[in-house]
Amino acid sequence: MANPPTSIQDTPEKDADVGGIAADRLRSIIERVERLEEEKKALSGDIKDIMQEAKSAGFDAKVIRQIISIRKKEPAEVEEQETLLDLYRRALGM
Amino acid sequence: MANPPTSIQDTPEKDADVGGIAADRLRSIIERVERLEEEKKALSGDIKDIMQEAKSAGFDAKVIRQIISIRKKEPAEVEEQETLLDLYRRALGM
Amino acid sequence: MANPPTSIQDTPEKDADVGGIAADRLRSIIERVERLEEEKKALSGDIKDIMQEAKSAGFDAKVIRQIISIRKKEPAEVEEQETLLDLYRRALGM
Amino acid sequence: MANPPTSIQDTPEKDADVGGIAADRLRSIIERVERLEEEKKALSGDIKDIMQEAKSAGFDAKVIRQIISIRKKEPAEVEEQETLLDLYRRALGM
Repeated sequence: MANPPTSIQDTPEKDADVGGIAADRLRSIIERVERLEEEKKALSGDIKDIMQEAKSAGFDAKVIRQIISIRKKEPAEVEEQETLLDLYRRALGM
Repeated sequence: MANPPTSIQDTPEKDADVGGIAADRLRSIIERVERLEEEKKALSGDIKDIMQEAKSAGFDAKVIRQIISIRKKEPAEVEEQETLLDLYRRALGM
Repeated sequence: MANPPTSIQDTPEKDADVGGIAADRLRSIIERVERLEEEKKALSGDIKDIMQEAKSAGFDAKVIRQIISIRKKEPAEVEEQETLLDLYRRALGM
Repeated sequence: MANPPTSIQDTPEKDADVGGIAADRLRSIIERVERLEEEKKALSGDIKDIMQEAKSAGFDAKVIRQIISIRKKEPAEVEEQETLLDLYRRALGM
């Protein structure tokens, strides 16, 4: 293993078995999850920056979100939902 | 029906069928959901007030949240998780 | 504490002070939050039941959600966003 | 617009102005957000896979989540909250 555990230096075995726990395996799992969560957080920050750029360029952030949501759906689904939305609104006098 | 639809006055039938939509039924569904969501929102506000009261009385809000989370679990589950947490922490040298 | 008081009313003392903690006050705070969270959970269940009823009556649950979301906004806001949505879609060739 | 430009590079004009909307700019914003959201989704999938691997290796997923949450906090904050948690539990007879 290239990366030895950083705090359990006193274990000569391949995986430091502490209290029946495979410490290296556990540490590896936790560090990988933490790294991926850091990356997710960075991406969320990037998205926030782009939406800020959009607002600065005069676009409406909520409407951009609606566009993205529409693009995720099948065109047939979008059309059916818009037809129903119109129908329900008219039924409700909206 | 005690409460007639407020905006579709021109429908003589029991349920205003607008474009094939049972308007009164739809309106009733929507208004009931809206009322329940209002009540949920009010309860969330009440919870926030109590947590604010707790802080003013010198309690730690996060720790109160932990207590509430612990009380939701079975005592055996709590004990097992605390044992494992100790074990994992020691394995990681925390 | 073998049998702590369950409410503030039945304690003649100022408050059961355990380890410097006003135990009755803490218990009261926690129990009130738990009760309100129970009520919120029950309301969420009621909303789910109504949406199930709506589906059984042939309504589209997502479209009902859209109607409720539209009704929360000011009519002028709804109209402006729909105008922009149309504009953006045409600009994108959607 | 019959065939809108799909990227900024192939438009000789400053920007395809459709109904007063800078179409290329809008498209670029939307596509970048979509790409970042795809990446976030992929990372969430990777995290789920690692947690699945952890379970297969005999670890408790909830406790791993607790460890990760503890590691995010300052040691002094962790210690203070654990002291308070003990105190509150004893006050409540838990």
